Amino acid sequence: MELLKERILSEGRVIGEEILKVDSFLNQQIDVELLNEIGKEFKKLFSNKNINKILTIEASGIAIASIAAQYFKVPVVFAKKFDDDKTDDSSYEARVFSFTKNKGYKIRVSKRYLNKEDRILLIDDFLANGQAVLGLENLVEQAGAETQGIGIVIEKSFQEGRSKIEKLGLQIESLAIIEKMENGKINFK
Amino acid sequence: MELLKERILSEGRVIGEEILKVDSFLNQQIDVELLNEIGKEFKKLFSNKNINKILTIEASGIAIASIAAQYFKVPVVFAKKFDDDKTDDSSYEARVFSFTKNKGYKIRVSKRYLNKEDRILLIDDFLANGQAVLGLENLVEQAGAETQGIGIVIEKSFQEGRSKIEKLGLQIESLAIIEKMENGKINFK
Repeated sequence: MELLKERILSEGRVIGEEILKVDSFLNQQIDVELLNEIGKEFKKLFSNKNINKILTIEASGIAIASIAAQYFKVPVVFAKKFDDDKTDDSSYEARVFSFTKNKGYKIRVSKRYLNKEDRILLIDDFLANGQAVLGLENLVEQAGAETQGIGIVIEKSFQEGRSKIEKLGLQIESLAIIEKMENGKINFK
Repeated sequence: MELLKERILSEGRVIGEEILKVDSFLNQQIDVELLNEIGKEFKKLFSNKNINKILTIEASGIAIASIAAQYFKVPVVFAKKFDDDKTDDSSYEARVFSFTKNKGYKIRVSKRYLNKEDRILLIDDFLANGQAVLGLENLVEQAGAETQGIGIVIEKSFQEGRSKIEKLGLQIESLAIIEKMENGKINFK
């Protein structure tokens, strides 16, 4: 998606060889116009799928999923992150490890909002190590629901997320794929 | 806002005399169609204001603010919550106490995304004790920006938030105001 790549090039801040900050339009300040273009693109890419719900993860996924949901005309459900070790019987839970923050956390979705009739589109801002997506897919499986596809805004293909989630055998669409970040320079696939 | 009140009555779950759960359309599952009506209503109520940015707080505020921002044609900035006691010089920070969770946390917005030219609309899902809104207003003041108004989806007027934030002398608009919750019954103002 050219518009997105342009924004990444003009506003993305590369930290080291693995971290890309896009706080100015995606992760703290949100450019709702750009998100609308992203939403339309996801709708186009998954137009072959029968989707009745979008599942994402707080916090950055919420805006992306909510704007995209307007094009799919479906509700959004977002998984909440928890640091605790408590177990909540009323929720589906999964463990997620964040390599960026070097710590694990739990994600939860109330059992009320995921069920076996659901045909889910998973949406997230980044695909890096794939842990968040695998956690979300785990929740979907616990609910007996079915994931129809995975929509990612920015994929860092030099990390191992893609190969991990490809094993799920699902349609994966990343709107911008970064192959390499070296000396502050971003190379798209 | 009648549509919102109807949803609160049909789907809201009252816990004790103070807690209202609206997870089925606002706080975990998000009804994007309803949010569009909420966004239009905020635009109508604040049409007299010159707003260039919407400020909210993660997580539930993000969807509401993002959908509303489409009607204002402005970006959204969301404050992030932190449990730590570290100080981050690159961010504006405020302390917020959550009476619901009975604990304090910090909220932060990068100094990049709030500045003295900004004319802010604060948006949040609930007004209860007013702590989150006061924290957001504190960030706006630190940035030298100016708040144009405060948009709340659900106000619990039996708690003290309203009287606290009225002292700011700003336009406050709550789309549904709950006066009392007794024996599981919701009474609107």
